[in-house]
Amino acid sequence: LEEDDIKGFREDFLDMHTYEQASFFREQPVELRRWIYGYLSPAEFAEIIESMDFEETLEYFTEMDPQYSGAIMTELPVDDAVDILSLLEKDEVASFLTLMDQESAEEIKLLLNYEEKTAGSIMTTEFIALYDTQTVEQVMKLLKEEAPDAEMIYYLYVVDEAKKIVGVLSIRDLIVSDYDALIKDVMSEWVITVSAGKNQEEVAQLFMDYDFLAVPVVDFQNHLIGIITVDDILDVVDEEASEDYSKLAGVADGEHHTDTPFEAAKKRLPWLIILLFLGLFTASLIGQFEETLEQVAVLAIFIPLIAGMAGNTGTQSLAVAVRGLATGNFGKQGKFKWLLRELGTGMITGGVSGVILAIVIFIWQQNLVLGLLVGVSIFASLIVATIAGAFIPILMDRLKIDPAVASGPFITTLNDITSILIYFGMATSFMSYLV
Amino acid sequence: LEEDDIKGFREDFLDMHTYEQASFFREQPVELRRWIYGYLSPAEFAEIIESMDFEETLEYFTEMDPQYSGAIMTELPVDDAVDILSLLEKDEVASFLTLMDQESAEEIKLLLNYEEKTAGSIMTTEFIALYDTQTVEQVMKLLKEEAPDAEMIYYLYVVDEAKKIVGVLSIRDLIVSDYDALIKDVMSEWVITVSAGKNQEEVAQLFMDYDFLAVPVVDFQNHLIGIITVDDILDVVDEEASEDYSKLAGVADGEHHTDTPFEAAKKRLPWLIILLFLGLFTASLIGQFEETLEQVAVLAIFIPLIAGMAGNTGTQSLAVAVRGLATGNFGKQGKFKWLLRELGTGMITGGVSGVILAIVIFIWQQNLVLGLLVGVSIFASLIVATIAGAFIPILMDRLKIDPAVASGPFITTLNDITSILIYFGMATSFMSYLV
Repeated sequence: LEEDDIKGFREDFLDMHTYEQASFFREQPVELRRWIYGYLSPAEFAEIIESMDFEETLEYFTEMDPQYSGAIMTELPVDDAVDILSLLEKDEVASFLTLMDQESAEEIKLLLNYEEKTAGSIMTTEFIALYDTQTVEQVMKLLKEEAPDAEMIYYLYVVDEAKKIVGVLSIRDLIVSDYDALIKDVMSEWVITVSAGKNQEEVAQLFMDYDFLAVPVVDFQNHLIGIITVDDILDVVDEEASEDYSKLAGVADGEHHTDTPFEAAKKRLPWLIILLFLGLFTASLIGQFEETLEQVAVLAIFIPLIAGMAGNTGTQSLAVAVRGLATGNFGKQGKFKWLLRELGTGMITGGVSGVILAIVIFIWQQNLVLGLLVGVSIFASLIVATIAGAFIPILMDRLKIDPAVASGPFITTLNDITSILIYFGMATSFMSYLV
Repeated sequence: LEEDDIKGFREDFLDMHTYEQASFFREQPVELRRWIYGYLSPAEFAEIIESMDFEETLEYFTEMDPQYSGAIMTELPVDDAVDILSLLEKDEVASFLTLMDQESAEEIKLLLNYEEKTAGSIMTTEFIALYDTQTVEQVMKLLKEEAPDAEMIYYLYVVDEAKKIVGVLSIRDLIVSDYDALIKDVMSEWVITVSAGKNQEEVAQLFMDYDFLAVPVVDFQNHLIGIITVDDILDVVDEEASEDYSKLAGVADGEHHTDTPFEAAKKRLPWLIILLFLGLFTASLIGQFEETLEQVAVLAIFIPLIAGMAGNTGTQSLAVAVRGLATGNFGKQGKFKWLLRELGTGMITGGVSGVILAIVIFIWQQNLVLGLLVGVSIFASLIVATIAGAFIPILMDRLKIDPAVASGPFITTLNDITSILIYFGMATSFMSYLV
């Protein structure tokens, strides 16, 4: 990468796909990155930004000349620009907007108003809208002019004079139609729209159910205000899945592989400290049974087994319920039926585990009462844990809270506590047979 | 739904989107479903099947006349037909293939050879290939004829005489080009292909990195043999995420909301029984310290706290590592650096938790030695657990095992065991100060 060989660099570099340009760029030290900004036009660099993880780009923007970064922001597809700006503080956003072309800045301001994770926040306003009175030939001509700018030309949405959406047309329909046909006659009137406030997860489900490549976004009066394309949905599906996964493990959303140990610890500690106090509460519960424990110390050795199995059973039924809720697989009365099914499942898993444990402990410890005690405790604990794992996310869903918030550690600890209460409660009741 | 009103039914029914047709059909009892089979052509019913969850369709196929089901299978896009057939037993597949149009049957037989979850198994062979010597006008004409059949016409792949892939062309490029231009001159030679054996998860990552709508699949000689479209990738992303999620919770992949309690229990019991025996092993370890326990019964009350926190810390670092491996975010030496980072993270989370615990226990139990013992145990356990959670998936990845297999329950139990060993090991060593 030599200073005086701008032309050679540009030729080699622009020959690569933007994704590879990004990989190359990323590996350069900051001084060379500054050279590259000088070598590329804002439009060229905007394409590289598009293929990057947006969090990563923030660093590069700070390295650039402000004029250059403003020009890049203008060149970016509005939905991407909005995604990047929404990572910044309010005053930083304001200063960016002043550096931008006024028209783009206005459009972005509008989009920034939509709440995060709604259809409005992931849509683009760079789409082609047709009128139902145009002919196929007119539209083909229009496409020739506008295709390079629009984000998606494979689905075209048709509006009436009031800009209300009335139909949809795929390029496929356009190509197989006669040139002089009216759009009105070749379009499909059957068009599914989403409102700008709709949750992005529900929009993604729509794409999966209907195999859409794009979906139009409308306001309350059914005016076409934007479109959402499948490439953004792919990111949504991936992001939502990551989120659910992280929540199940009790990791704060957004832990990044470039975080320092301090940043990572900061994101993990909240759950750990909650668990710590829940654990102390569990300890004080067991403390109530200290007398029982002093008389039959052997009881203690099964604490991790009982708590561990109850905790995991709860996580299993939690995971299945959260997935079921996320994919909308339960109907209305389906949720009650689901709890009944989980009761059945808990009785079977509890029964099998209880019988195995009772037999093994009887043989190992030569103590029938201890075997029965642990076996029955596991039976009861697993039933409670299974139902709790399913009931809590369903309850949260009913209360309009994201069920994935009922994360693994919480359910696990809850089930630790109930299982230990069951175990020591029973042990204390049947003390006379144990000693 | 009356018998003699076929025409009226067809009009109303065919007016709906296939997704809604499926919802309607699904709600009918089996007798009415049989009527519907009679009312719709195989091509019409094939479109409904396409929009369904394929597992669900198996039931419907058994209700149909064999000729009718064979005709539907012929009408389905080959990739969907393959997905459905791969759910059946070998002999059932064979009998289906004899009912089908021979050409389709041959194509399907070919695709069934590809291993599950590879590019070959999700690709379709219904694509349009162009020759680089054709003109834009010829291609537009070709599209008019073939568009209704091909699965994806938005990206067109260009081959030479030997059917080797040489370029790609989007409809967008086609529309903005002159009618008499040669394909060779308007296509992009920069085309990313995947080999038929490539893992579907890696293919999905490619779609996310490059925002593709389709990708061509090639054999070892670079011959174009199929294409993969983004709608199938959306399903792959969703499926892989579900799988990782289920594995983290220790639920067998593929638990379905229609499973009976017996089926659900069967899928959850394997992990529970493994945990049961690991739990018994843990119990026997604690049994080694029975003497310590008998002297200081209060030690027992902190077992769930220590095991629970170590288990959860391990799950946290496991989840972050599995996601990092899945998205390819670690470089080559990145993995060693990662373990170092996790060591740092573990020291911080362990340190903070340990200090809090030591203070709280000292105040609560008025026992400084017990507080220090629990605090230091948590400090050491959390470091070990954090590193174990990161190291095991990285090791599995190195051994070419899917790191998600190192699921939550396994890591949790492993960390239960190490933390209890640390705790009782230390308690036994410092016994003289505790009593």
